[in-house]
Amino acid sequence: MARVIDFNSDLGESFGAYKLGDDEAILAAVTSANIACGYHAGDPAVMRRTLALCKERSVAPGAHPGYPDLLGFGRRAMAVSPDDVYNYVLYQLGALNGLAVAAGMRLQHVKPHGALYNQAEIDMRLAEAIAAAVKTFDPELILLVPANSAMAAAGRTAGLRVAAEVFADRAYTPEGRLVDRRLPGALITDPQEAAARVVEMVERGTVTAVDGSKLTIAADSVCVHGDSPTAVSFAVAVRQALSERGIAIRPLREWLR
Amino acid sequence: MARVIDFNSDLGESFGAYKLGDDEAILAAVTSANIACGYHAGDPAVMRRTLALCKERSVAPGAHPGYPDLLGFGRRAMAVSPDDVYNYVLYQLGALNGLAVAAGMRLQHVKPHGALYNQAEIDMRLAEAIAAAVKTFDPELILLVPANSAMAAAGRTAGLRVAAEVFADRAYTPEGRLVDRRLPGALITDPQEAAARVVEMVERGTVTAVDGSKLTIAADSVCVHGDSPTAVSFAVAVRQALSERGIAIRPLREWLR
Amino acid sequence: MARVIDFNSDLGESFGAYKLGDDEAILAAVTSANIACGYHAGDPAVMRRTLALCKERSVAPGAHPGYPDLLGFGRRAMAVSPDDVYNYVLYQLGALNGLAVAAGMRLQHVKPHGALYNQAEIDMRLAEAIAAAVKTFDPELILLVPANSAMAAAGRTAGLRVAAEVFADRAYTPEGRLVDRRLPGALITDPQEAAARVVEMVERGTVTAVDGSKLTIAADSVCVHGDSPTAVSFAVAVRQALSERGIAIRPLREWLR
Amino acid sequence: MARVIDFNSDLGESFGAYKLGDDEAILAAVTSANIACGYHAGDPAVMRRTLALCKERSVAPGAHPGYPDLLGFGRRAMAVSPDDVYNYVLYQLGALNGLAVAAGMRLQHVKPHGALYNQAEIDMRLAEAIAAAVKTFDPELILLVPANSAMAAAGRTAGLRVAAEVFADRAYTPEGRLVDRRLPGALITDPQEAAARVVEMVERGTVTAVDGSKLTIAADSVCVHGDSPTAVSFAVAVRQALSERGIAIRPLREWLR
Repeated sequence: MARVIDFNSDLGESFGAYKLGDDEAILAAVTSANIACGYHAGDPAVMRRTLALCKERSVAPGAHPGYPDLLGFGRRAMAVSPDDVYNYVLYQLGALNGLAVAAGMRLQHVKPHGALYNQAEIDMRLAEAIAAAVKTFDPELILLVPANSAMAAAGRTAGLRVAAEVFADRAYTPEGRLVDRRLPGALITDPQEAAARVVEMVERGTVTAVDGSKLTIAADSVCVHGDSPTAVSFAVAVRQALSERGIAIRPLREWLR
Repeated sequence: MARVIDFNSDLGESFGAYKLGDDEAILAAVTSANIACGYHAGDPAVMRRTLALCKERSVAPGAHPGYPDLLGFGRRAMAVSPDDVYNYVLYQLGALNGLAVAAGMRLQHVKPHGALYNQAEIDMRLAEAIAAAVKTFDPELILLVPANSAMAAAGRTAGLRVAAEVFADRAYTPEGRLVDRRLPGALITDPQEAAARVVEMVERGTVTAVDGSKLTIAADSVCVHGDSPTAVSFAVAVRQALSERGIAIRPLREWLR
Repeated sequence: MARVIDFNSDLGESFGAYKLGDDEAILAAVTSANIACGYHAGDPAVMRRTLALCKERSVAPGAHPGYPDLLGFGRRAMAVSPDDVYNYVLYQLGALNGLAVAAGMRLQHVKPHGALYNQAEIDMRLAEAIAAAVKTFDPELILLVPANSAMAAAGRTAGLRVAAEVFADRAYTPEGRLVDRRLPGALITDPQEAAARVVEMVERGTVTAVDGSKLTIAADSVCVHGDSPTAVSFAVAVRQALSERGIAIRPLREWLR
Repeated sequence: MARVIDFNSDLGESFGAYKLGDDEAILAAVTSANIACGYHAGDPAVMRRTLALCKERSVAPGAHPGYPDLLGFGRRAMAVSPDDVYNYVLYQLGALNGLAVAAGMRLQHVKPHGALYNQAEIDMRLAEAIAAAVKTFDPELILLVPANSAMAAAGRTAGLRVAAEVFADRAYTPEGRLVDRRLPGALITDPQEAAARVVEMVERGTVTAVDGSKLTIAADSVCVHGDSPTAVSFAVAVRQALSERGIAIRPLREWLR
């Protein structure tokens, strides 16, 4: 297996006068950026600025489409039809692409945001709508989604390259789902332990689940939370530990097949 | 001069549960469609449906970007900076392009909407921002704007193809501006007279102004209002009269240089 | 039992340049109006105009709060917390009240809209949030909701007057729920039959369910759909038939206890 | 003249996941709060929380209505008709009042925000629309506006109590307007000097203009900017200096006639 992995994080979540996240700090920790597209967060000026920062730091930009719910930051489940999910993803992806083209950049990937991500993780009709939107817009785009999700399956069926996202700071159930944050043992707080887990995922395609059993899991990209300074410094430490063990941290576009 | 002209109209102005305009009727009257992009009107589903209708009827689709003012339908002047106008145009143009690519279509042109159109008609900084956005996204796109406007000048300076828009149902001042609707003689209500005026614009590049003087005016596209059944039937009658006089009505992309 | 009933309908659902519904026609058919408050439909100008129409026609105005989803017309289920439902109802109710006070009018009732109505019909936590918002703003307000719903129970527990809403054109299951529109027998299309059913509800508090069994059901207000001319003329015919049978059609505020 | 003055600041400008301003710190510096109402900033949850904070700290709450331009934070001039300004103010004032009633609170005042404030400062038709909206909703509400503005005149003509707002940290032109921030001498940075200026305004109704001349100016409330820690600490220092000179700092409702 390749000794290489990508680090991704959500960026460009500011809106108008509102600043959210420390994009400068996060950009130092990741190789791929999921950029909000104006529905749940982000606006045209923020998108443009975020793309410029990505270019400057050689971080690969991707679209982070979400539900049209700025008030709820796209985190509230909504009964949106697969047809409208298809439309919304194309709209947002196209909008970000408009600003990317203007900046002389090419989008690398698409990662759904918030409730859309959560719902499409298990709802195959939504997953297929997302995969179809991405495929029809640009078949070279990578779909960045949880390893064992409906989205991963739909993406592969559509013929897209699918990058499996893992969480370095979270425990997994034997079924490969994240352990609820509120349960004991859900969080991995030691960067060395987190790095060791990612190494195992990369090298062997397995990880120890919360019950001690071994779980099969693909790992192409580690999700880095940008919502706290702690999360960012944790990510930097994990990156460092992975590098020391000979795992390269590079954007998906450079190596994912 | 070429004996050919384009007919354009605003389409896809519905939003969610709200229907606006009789797009089916208008599509029979025009060769180019200015499609709302979700800021002042339109939504992703409407945009997709409108593009499909354009494809079916061989009407050339274009973007109709406006101000982010759904409540005011983009008709209220706003103090938006040139920088944000640039961002907003790219966002909306990109979004529509996303849905066009999915439909296997290519956008033909960009025509600013409402207050943005009115302000950029005379404000060179806004006009340049629009032209720059269009040029940087796709230099093949045509800028559809009033003949003697700041936008036309900015478009030409940027190296874009510029299509001069005229109004068949409106009188002009000696300076080439539209006579205020509320003034006597502002409206041309006879389709034959309107057609004769357009013929003169196309063949000689002139028209009689409201004061009887001759005005130099380019005419590449006639704007058709879709907001009333009368307007549409007027447009159909003008089209018919032009055809009879040997003026072809064809989309800009087929003949504009 | 009182031989009196109210007729209600959703009004003021236009937005900006978008017109929806024939409010003039509906106002002739009803005694109570549920006025959209700007979240799923309606805007301040529409609200003001609708209130003025209600005043002119002696129709009792009420608030019709919904989810903040203009694009989906408030019809899409959303995972909104009870706390935010409470906040949203107060915001919208207060906003409509602002315009009502300016018009020298007093609001009669509150009826939740769309997905909020549907979710709170069975979700007691949302129902309680709505009841609490209404009670705390003005305990004299009537809560207009389905007869056997969580909202009716929550309203009564909160000490509010609750008006039971019924549908003259719809069949009921033995459990008192509406039969799905797509099933056979779901719709009552004969105004005389509809009127006879409402008379039974008013006089005896019962109705024949779709399976032929007798169902206990309270009936304080008949919901009139305004989305089609047929619906409005149906409502007018039912009103007429009820009047002939001696059932008075009067706004809730005049008689509900 | 009364040796008393109010300190006001804009509060509750957060929105959904977005936090703006340090409301806790500002509340310690002011006696009146201008609360955003959901158009340019603020949302129902933020409004409720801000009202609760005001109650806790005995700060008098007021409405801070603005243009429907969340993306521009209400700071962009817009061609909104006086009629719609009237509607928008009533909508927002009513909405905040809904949440205030629920909290057992009464609103003290209304202060327009941003571009609405700036335009209505000099446009009498907008000023009259604002005054009419406030007056018709609750004639006891105070209109908090610049001393020599169209709004002050319109408020007095409407029979409202008008509180004159001054800036402790800004120089005035001989005509009583603020000196442009970018000009030399525009800012007063020494709290002692600022306090001395306010004392003169309160005691004598005058202040020294930027050209050294004496200017007549009423002063009922000092505007405190909340957008920087420096601004808040400056305000605290001015408050302290005023107290030492025997000027009481109390909310308008306690003393304004």
